[in-house]
Amino acid sequence: MLSNAKIKWIHSLEQKKFRQQYGLFTAEGNKLTADLLDLLPCRLLVATEEWFLQNSEVKADEIITTDKVGIHKASMLKTPQDVLGIFEIPNPELNPNLLKGKISLVLDNIQDPGNLGTILRIADWFGMEHVICSIGTVDAYHPKTVQATMGAIGRVKIHYTSLQSLFEKTDLPVFGTFLEGEVIYHCELPSEGLIVMGNEGNGISESTAKYVTQKLYIPDFPLGKTGSESLNVSAATAIVCSEFRRRLYGKTE
Amino acid sequence: MLSNAKIKWIHSLEQKKFRQQYGLFTAEGNKLTADLLDLLPCRLLVATEEWFLQNSEVKADEIITTDKVGIHKASMLKTPQDVLGIFEIPNPELNPNLLKGKISLVLDNIQDPGNLGTILRIADWFGMEHVICSIGTVDAYHPKTVQATMGAIGRVKIHYTSLQSLFEKTDLPVFGTFLEGEVIYHCELPSEGLIVMGNEGNGISESTAKYVTQKLYIPDFPLGKTGSESLNVSAATAIVCSEFRRRLYGKTE
Repeated sequence: MLSNAKIKWIHSLEQKKFRQQYGLFTAEGNKLTADLLDLLPCRLLVATEEWFLQNSEVKADEIITTDKVGIHKASMLKTPQDVLGIFEIPNPELNPNLLKGKISLVLDNIQDPGNLGTILRIADWFGMEHVICSIGTVDAYHPKTVQATMGAIGRVKIHYTSLQSLFEKTDLPVFGTFLEGEVIYHCELPSEGLIVMGNEGNGISESTAKYVTQKLYIPDFPLGKTGSESLNVSAATAIVCSEFRRRLYGKTE
Repeated sequence: MLSNAKIKWIHSLEQKKFRQQYGLFTAEGNKLTADLLDLLPCRLLVATEEWFLQNSEVKADEIITTDKVGIHKASMLKTPQDVLGIFEIPNPELNPNLLKGKISLVLDNIQDPGNLGTILRIADWFGMEHVICSIGTVDAYHPKTVQATMGAIGRVKIHYTSLQSLFEKTDLPVFGTFLEGEVIYHCELPSEGLIVMGNEGNGISESTAKYVTQKLYIPDFPLGKTGSESLNVSAATAIVCSEFRRRLYGKTE
């Protein structure tokens, strides 16, 4: 039975401090929850009887069957589906040696939960195993971020750390987009390195910029026209990641 | 003075039916409003005294000075700034001849206002003059869309029409992304045509797909891995537009 105390506890996970205290986050929706059940330990699964009939072999520490009204009470979505799950937040090791030979994403104070979710989905699509977030980046287990990742939240290894300490510990090349950067289309791009994406309003911070070894630029069209001053950070991330992967396409597969 | 009736009227524009009835939409924030004042006729400008002191030469049919509390009452944002403007919705001509020699974006039932805003910003960055939306696409003058465009809403020409009638009237090549498409990185891509982007959940509809003359694919990495099944539509739009512009880069400028 879905008690009021349990509903209150589930809603407490909308707040970062409780997610961190319990090491848990919520995912909602039939597809996302089913995907995450294959990827992460599930502490609690709340679903309708119909959902359990169609998904009989689920593994969770605690299972609660309820009706649509119960799901609605526990949900943070306007139009909840038939299931929500409370999952353990992974705590992957961040060892600079693990980043060698790979492209990883570094996020410098991304603020919008939806942007972060879209970026994690891009990282997953392009096979970037690690996403390293500055301490000031919005929490990746924010409900809006989790929903926007479409399951990538369970596949990509997400780390929060001081970017300065990361850069000090690695000699990997560091890439970032700047207005004065080199046009990305014709740059040589390696198969290992760190791609830094900056804050929505302010771009890459000064303290991070000094570690950037190659400045890149996504040219507008026609070049230098008066118009949009920048791309949304998730759109820019998509293009930069695609450009890195384009250099490898057909070479390693 | 900002009357309660005026506040109510401003809030009515949060609804599509009133935006369409009056042919008006709302933009908020110091930067966005200032940008749009240079681009579109302004019916009403509501701002603090401080804002008007710094922006003395604004043109609007009606100007109301208020304080932060007044802005807050009229605003639909959680953290309003110092100004909001009510602007006329442009009604640009859609003549298939105008699309010749250009790349234009076609949106097939995009549902999320934030995605649409990000896509309009991408179109603006890459100099795509026209964005043609299916009747089922979310309203481009939705407040969340307007805010996400960062001013592109005043530069890009936005049309709503039956896509079928559009395709019937043009012989331009039509591009779309499909799982069985050709890898975009190595395709020849022309300097004119229509790029179709599909709905968030269902992709390009069947009725639109039959007009697509070249199917494209953004490869994941490593190719064909088990993971994310797709990119967010705005991320995919960014990559496809960038690929079209990459083919032209250095050729026409």
